[in-house]
Amino acid sequence: MDSELPPLLVLGPPAVFNIFKSQYPHKYRFLNAFSSDLPLLQFLQTQNTHPSSVRAIFCNQRQLVTADIIRSLPSLGIIATSTVGYDHIDTTECRRRGIQIATLGSQFAADVADMAVALLIDVIFKISAGDRFVKKLVPFKPWSFPSDSKLGGKRIGIIGLGRIGAEVAKRLEAFDCIIMYHSRNKNPSVSYTFYSNVLDLASDSDVLVLCCPLTEQTKYIVNKEVMLALGKDGIIVNIGRGALVDENELVQCLMKGEIRGAGLDVFENEPYVPKELFSLDNVVLSPHAAALTLDCFMDSCRHVAKSLDAFFSS
Amino acid sequence: MDSELPPLLVLGPPAVFNIFKSQYPHKYRFLNAFSSDLPLLQFLQTQNTHPSSVRAIFCNQRQLVTADIIRSLPSLGIIATSTVGYDHIDTTECRRRGIQIATLGSQFAADVADMAVALLIDVIFKISAGDRFVKKLVPFKPWSFPSDSKLGGKRIGIIGLGRIGAEVAKRLEAFDCIIMYHSRNKNPSVSYTFYSNVLDLASDSDVLVLCCPLTEQTKYIVNKEVMLALGKDGIIVNIGRGALVDENELVQCLMKGEIRGAGLDVFENEPYVPKELFSLDNVVLSPHAAALTLDCFMDSCRHVAKSLDAFFSS
Repeated sequence: MDSELPPLLVLGPPAVFNIFKSQYPHKYRFLNAFSSDLPLLQFLQTQNTHPSSVRAIFCNQRQLVTADIIRSLPSLGIIATSTVGYDHIDTTECRRRGIQIATLGSQFAADVADMAVALLIDVIFKISAGDRFVKKLVPFKPWSFPSDSKLGGKRIGIIGLGRIGAEVAKRLEAFDCIIMYHSRNKNPSVSYTFYSNVLDLASDSDVLVLCCPLTEQTKYIVNKEVMLALGKDGIIVNIGRGALVDENELVQCLMKGEIRGAGLDVFENEPYVPKELFSLDNVVLSPHAAALTLDCFMDSCRHVAKSLDAFFSS
Repeated sequence: MDSELPPLLVLGPPAVFNIFKSQYPHKYRFLNAFSSDLPLLQFLQTQNTHPSSVRAIFCNQRQLVTADIIRSLPSLGIIATSTVGYDHIDTTECRRRGIQIATLGSQFAADVADMAVALLIDVIFKISAGDRFVKKLVPFKPWSFPSDSKLGGKRIGIIGLGRIGAEVAKRLEAFDCIIMYHSRNKNPSVSYTFYSNVLDLASDSDVLVLCCPLTEQTKYIVNKEVMLALGKDGIIVNIGRGALVDENELVQCLMKGEIRGAGLDVFENEPYVPKELFSLDNVVLSPHAAALTLDCFMDSCRHVAKSLDAFFSS
């Protein structure tokens, strides 16, 4: 009987939820809070579910898992998120309660790194702009060649040299780029130049690639000062989280030509994207799609299922 | 006096011509045939120039340098082209007359290879389509995720493992792709799997990248049979010359879903691009822009000037 299955509270919904449900229809009793406008406790009532019977949440980054939500579920033991980051989850409350956060970890590092390189190369070589031009999606104007456009030799400043940052570095080395990085600590196992200070890194870089998690310390790690240090020929690629960059200042810098271009997979207030960016050929925008592939979805489902299995069987 | 400068017959005009002219204004008497509708000999008459005084041509791929043109210039000794390929020049007639063809050689291999990777990654990750979607350049439809989209592990069949092909291979190895190739001869210095037959290469590949020159032997080297062998999940990237691929068949295969997608920097009858491709999200089009960067232009000018210098001073 369905009601004997462990309830899984689905907030969000996770992008992968439909696939997850089709893969594991008989494993959980899915409580689809995302499809209801009711406050959580009232919603649970409509599902004949007592808050204390909810031990697991499944979510994505669109839905904040606040301290209030966590406190209203006294038996909560695991929050599985279909994301690499977990800035949408109140980690302080989780720590206090000993609640496990199951993220996708580093398994999508390669995919996210591919996206970072894709965005960079697109900004430099104006691929999307060229495609629009050839497909006549924009009013005719003569094709303007990208100026100063070699990828080889570019100095790439990677902010956050975790799994994703390392994969970005590996790819761009093959294009003969020069890799430098900033992170909390120097990584003794790599030979790339380490910068303890983001401002210094920006001054010495042609490109900044944001690969770090969003925390209180990294919010606006790329602020106006950093952008001005990067300078008029500089490019910003963000595949981390929108709020790593001060988006208002980024828009201003791009419009005033204070930096050369940007490739953005993430935005400060998703799904909102500043309209000022829509008409800029030096800006390539992506709908937070770095790991939005069917392959990734299937992998995510397996990974989330594994985390939940381990939790429920322990 | 200007008329004492050696005349340089400019056909085309080369994309780099304006820069070249501004760099070397006092070096040549520029005969801008491209700006006249007159037949060549009449045009030369308007320039008070006898055909036998023309020893050098500067051209690009837009302007055929036919046997007729070559025969009408009895003193012609060099044809400098601002391109890597030289399929627009009648090489038989040049060989017969001992006329030197100065191309850009392999100096842009890195740039062209960057473009190949850019187009492939764009098709796989739908970067241009995502940019259009976020910028609302297309009527709203829900974002459709690319399916089966990892670059790592893809089997890349490179057709033509010259300088450009080798640079493509080097880059895609860093993405953990598997490299295979077809060329006239096996290259003993690489460990990639060699295919003497394009059809077999296509059968075993997820992606075909065209990096060979266009010759009588390579025209339509990717024909319908090869596309069907590549199959429904296959992607074609062409940064060589349009006529390496049977473009009519390519359009049909793309529209019918007989191959998955294409990234094209070159077309069979440039600047014409088949309109059927404009609405396909799985097709990324580029305006033959692989080496169209200011850096490349400056390099081209220096290279052409060097070739012409060597010729006129010998």
